[in-house]
Amino acid sequence: MPDTRLDTERIQAARRVVDPVYLDTPLYRCQALEPDLGCAVSVKLETANPVRSFKGRGTELIAAGLGSGYVVCASAGNLGQALAWSGRRRGLDVTVVAPRSAPAAKLDRIHALGARLELVDGDFDSARERASHIARRDGIRLVEDSLDVETCEGAATIGLEIVAQAPSADVVLIALGGGAMATGIGHVLKELAPGVEVVCVQPAGAPAMTLSYRARRVVTTESTTTIADGVAGRRPIPAVLDDLLQVADDAVLVEEASIVAGVRMLFEHAGLVVEPSGALGVAAILEDHARFAGRHVVTVVCGGNVDLDAHRRWVTPPS
Amino acid sequence: MPDTRLDTERIQAARRVVDPVYLDTPLYRCQALEPDLGCAVSVKLETANPVRSFKGRGTELIAAGLGSGYVVCASAGNLGQALAWSGRRRGLDVTVVAPRSAPAAKLDRIHALGARLELVDGDFDSARERASHIARRDGIRLVEDSLDVETCEGAATIGLEIVAQAPSADVVLIALGGGAMATGIGHVLKELAPGVEVVCVQPAGAPAMTLSYRARRVVTTESTTTIADGVAGRRPIPAVLDDLLQVADDAVLVEEASIVAGVRMLFEHAGLVVEPSGALGVAAILEDHARFAGRHVVTVVCGGNVDLDAHRRWVTPPS
Repeated sequence: MPDTRLDTERIQAARRVVDPVYLDTPLYRCQALEPDLGCAVSVKLETANPVRSFKGRGTELIAAGLGSGYVVCASAGNLGQALAWSGRRRGLDVTVVAPRSAPAAKLDRIHALGARLELVDGDFDSARERASHIARRDGIRLVEDSLDVETCEGAATIGLEIVAQAPSADVVLIALGGGAMATGIGHVLKELAPGVEVVCVQPAGAPAMTLSYRARRVVTTESTTTIADGVAGRRPIPAVLDDLLQVADDAVLVEEASIVAGVRMLFEHAGLVVEPSGALGVAAILEDHARFAGRHVVTVVCGGNVDLDAHRRWVTPPS
Repeated sequence: MPDTRLDTERIQAARRVVDPVYLDTPLYRCQALEPDLGCAVSVKLETANPVRSFKGRGTELIAAGLGSGYVVCASAGNLGQALAWSGRRRGLDVTVVAPRSAPAAKLDRIHALGARLELVDGDFDSARERASHIARRDGIRLVEDSLDVETCEGAATIGLEIVAQAPSADVVLIALGGGAMATGIGHVLKELAPGVEVVCVQPAGAPAMTLSYRARRVVTTESTTTIADGVAGRRPIPAVLDDLLQVADDAVLVEEASIVAGVRMLFEHAGLVVEPSGALGVAAILEDHARFAGRHVVTVVCGGNVDLDAHRRWVTPPS
């Protein structure tokens, strides 16, 4: 039984709070991917909802808990979009602080959903500092992805669904950034399906949480270099690392070229438009066929917010 | 109460027979589409399953009813793929007759799913003739899309879900080809949500069923000219037309340019890879903004099996 900050009964109860549009997402075998991947592959698809990522599961819990009022979050783009969506339904006044370099597709949608958007130079961790400053200055609630347990327990509802939809799963591949999704899904799997291997996948260009997991203590990095903007953090949160150490069986790093190949394969063979973070699982299989051969692998396709020009480059076959 | 060949209790019971991977598909508002369409738009997404179209709902009913044995169908590509999938699970020996001109993506998948594939010159109605010949010659079951009530009642389970998921829907847009999906969803809506307008959409280049609906008698055409291969029939089935007359409020024809624009908009603004038949609803809104303005429109995105080269052409903005 994992000893994390998360609680399985609360996660089960969360299903009654989260808008059904974010729940019970498709999980299905993608046999067209399998000749190239050498194992049985199922996708758990988190892109077919109003914010095109899994983040709505967590922001629904946060917004339901807050009622009306003011709230601010830092976001690489997806959390902000989801908080704007959940907040708008419930009369929350939402401010999102995001890196100026975030994909325009994400920033445009945050704006369209009615949130106040503040852009900062620098990366996600710069946005975190600025959001924290705003919260202190204005005395309003700071939503912190992965630290706020609602973000983890919201993501954890994906785990409940995987257990129900894929009883034959041997491995679940989960994108690793701040750790909300990995600790959430991992907690549920370790409690309800302990035989399933939980493998986190992070870009080699943004390895802070993976390095921390391996060192069993927080390791920060100076910078990040990855197209997977959704998982590009430098400063792991200690409490989240503690949870991750309880529930993850492994954390692996993948190269940028493999992430691009994953985006392309999901488009070509599965007809799915995914952002780079959503292709990390496929990238991990591509880099280690032997590890997954003969097993049933579920990969969580966690988001689909991409700029079209970048996506077009990624899916164009290398000449 | 519609007086069709379909039965709502049987449709409800079908949910217990169809593999859950085809049921309870996403239905969600796509607000990023709305500035261009001028109305509230929700998509009912039938592409995120092992055969990337809604046809699995019907083939599951057929295969469950048959048990083992031999079966043949004509298909523009999606029914064949679905019947191959359902048949393989249950030990059915499946032959699919398809036009040689069908998208390679569809033909490749039929083959990969283990069905025998026979290609014919000519169009879908030529394939129907050939499949019928094989069935008579070999004394095996001919599966006829839209005529076999399981294909309609399978598709009708989409209607049950729309009623539950979109209680605020004013209009449902349904691609019209042979009529299985239109009569299926239409039957359920007329019985359970009679205030919802049921609008069928067909390409102007393949108008036989729409012309028949308007004339209230079967009208055949000499040829078809459309990229929407999934709905390109020339010879409506009388019994299906009788049902359609009971449940459809309207049938409209759309131009090829609008279908291409629909494929492009769904890709650009919703991140969805759809085949042309899946974009017919969006095409209908594009051609008649005034009709849908201020209403909540649900459009059934019925399939996503496209050849990549063609899709790339369609989504490249006109210069």
